[in-house]
Amino acid sequence: MYETLAVVGATGAVGRIVLEQLQQRNLPFKKLKLLASERSVGKEVRFNGEAIKVELLAPGAFKNVDLAIGSTPDEIAAEFVPYAVKEGAVVVDESGYWRMDPKVPLIIPEVNPDAANKHEGILASPNCSTTQMVVALAPLHQVARVTRVVVSTYQATSGAGLPGSEELNDSVRSALVGQTHPPKTFQHPIGFNLIPQIGSSKYEGYTSEEMKMVYETQKILGDDGIQVCPTCVRVPVTNGHSESILVETEKHISVEEAKELFEAFEGITVVDDLPNNQYPMPRDCEGKDDVFVGRIRKDISSPNGIAFWCVSDNLRKGAATNAVQIAELLMKRS
Amino acid sequence: MYETLAVVGATGAVGRIVLEQLQQRNLPFKKLKLLASERSVGKEVRFNGEAIKVELLAPGAFKNVDLAIGSTPDEIAAEFVPYAVKEGAVVVDESGYWRMDPKVPLIIPEVNPDAANKHEGILASPNCSTTQMVVALAPLHQVARVTRVVVSTYQATSGAGLPGSEELNDSVRSALVGQTHPPKTFQHPIGFNLIPQIGSSKYEGYTSEEMKMVYETQKILGDDGIQVCPTCVRVPVTNGHSESILVETEKHISVEEAKELFEAFEGITVVDDLPNNQYPMPRDCEGKDDVFVGRIRKDISSPNGIAFWCVSDNLRKGAATNAVQIAELLMKRS
Repeated sequence: MYETLAVVGATGAVGRIVLEQLQQRNLPFKKLKLLASERSVGKEVRFNGEAIKVELLAPGAFKNVDLAIGSTPDEIAAEFVPYAVKEGAVVVDESGYWRMDPKVPLIIPEVNPDAANKHEGILASPNCSTTQMVVALAPLHQVARVTRVVVSTYQATSGAGLPGSEELNDSVRSALVGQTHPPKTFQHPIGFNLIPQIGSSKYEGYTSEEMKMVYETQKILGDDGIQVCPTCVRVPVTNGHSESILVETEKHISVEEAKELFEAFEGITVVDDLPNNQYPMPRDCEGKDDVFVGRIRKDISSPNGIAFWCVSDNLRKGAATNAVQIAELLMKRS
Repeated sequence: MYETLAVVGATGAVGRIVLEQLQQRNLPFKKLKLLASERSVGKEVRFNGEAIKVELLAPGAFKNVDLAIGSTPDEIAAEFVPYAVKEGAVVVDESGYWRMDPKVPLIIPEVNPDAANKHEGILASPNCSTTQMVVALAPLHQVARVTRVVVSTYQATSGAGLPGSEELNDSVRSALVGQTHPPKTFQHPIGFNLIPQIGSSKYEGYTSEEMKMVYETQKILGDDGIQVCPTCVRVPVTNGHSESILVETEKHISVEEAKELFEAFEGITVVDDLPNNQYPMPRDCEGKDDVFVGRIRKDISSPNGIAFWCVSDNLRKGAATNAVQIAELLMKRS
């Protein structure tokens, strides 16, 4: 039984949506505790008509907490998760810090729910760009085994939290009057520009964000043989990550089969009618929980390839929604 | 000898840069004629200190013209090129209409200059997204033979001419105040959005823009065996196309070799220092004539692959600069 639920990072861009999702999905807990850094302590947040005060995230905060959902940066998660677990909470963590720990299952409920059965108090939710891609890969992998993925991302500024979205607006406004807004959140001005770097330089010319797409995909699908070549790019879009994906499979599947597999999979919505200009776009996917797939076509450069375009709200399925779904899964099974 | 040069479409986004390039590069012609549609007839354009009146593009306009550079939409080029040739002009055409005609050489001067030796009055300049990609592929192809290319583009609105760039500004301004600017040039609002469609539905789920990248690449490199899988996407950037490219080669080349090949190739500038946040971006490449290459790294999903990021000013090397370079090539050889 999970009676007391804590939301950690409750006032951030993702934390807010976690609270929204908890209300919408009507999860069966009795008491809600909101935790955040000193800056937000004492703020009141309304939840199901009730005003709840934000408390300090610090050792001792998780006594009597059964389940916690963490939406914090890596360095905060590195610190709080161990004492939360020690104090008796099970933690669903959205940060990148614990994902690759062999003792921590990395979960997308539609893809690998059974991995949640075995944990030692920590369960991780994948990186935003990985989650939407793996949801789209899963139905193809189940039938035809994915051997290789080439992916180029078009990632929204909200991936860097509220400061990212604010910097995009400031940068665009400045550019419209011929000025340059000095970047703080991003490496360079993002208004009317593209930045082909997300995260830091990590491995042989790939960034940390790109390597997450490699390792997390292999871990979630339970197959180290899947080869992934990612390119992650920040684009001047507020919310909603997009991905151009080419997937090669061991067994050949036709475009028609691929479409049927996508359509039948929980959590995927197919929008695919090029002659009528219909395909997923960030402005249409914002505020929705599904992964949207379109431009589904045969890869004309390999015998067993399928190319497609995938968009999802990175704050939702890429973060808050997936974490709440993991919490839901644990509650159902408890 | 090419004594009289005509610029067709002289008042458009690309035509203006053709004139700028003709002045900068100091091409050895004696007389300049400016041609455009009725709307622009009578306008005066300054060239090397002299005011030149725009004349009507119509049969008869090419008498005494030796060489013409055409920057017009396909349907205009379909009409004027035949009578221009009949009246004695050699035409360097930037439209898509003549490119795949087997009698028309398709030229990038750094890549296949010799193809310009044999023509029947028409020479074509490739599609903007193709040109920058093929410039980047050429040095690798010469040494290791390119067998396959997977490319995802991030294409600027100026690719749709001046109306495209104006629509981006209008769309962004509207979005900043929570409104939607009704799209005219693009299929959907482009401000803070992405449109995964450039051109019309053409072949098995691919667009006309994407199929240009397939066929034109094969034609310019003279190798029908090169397999290309393209995804073309419009992004809210004013000027400068970007491309995420994965290339597989018959012969293995190391990242170091690839960098050296790029650096040694005329027309390529390498900007590649990820640890110091250095790579090509549209805002840095605007107004420049080179193709910029960065994020050069081993493809971690295939034995013989190189991945990289490529940016170029689509109005320059992607259009005006390349066409003026073809004219220059013809003049040098005449």
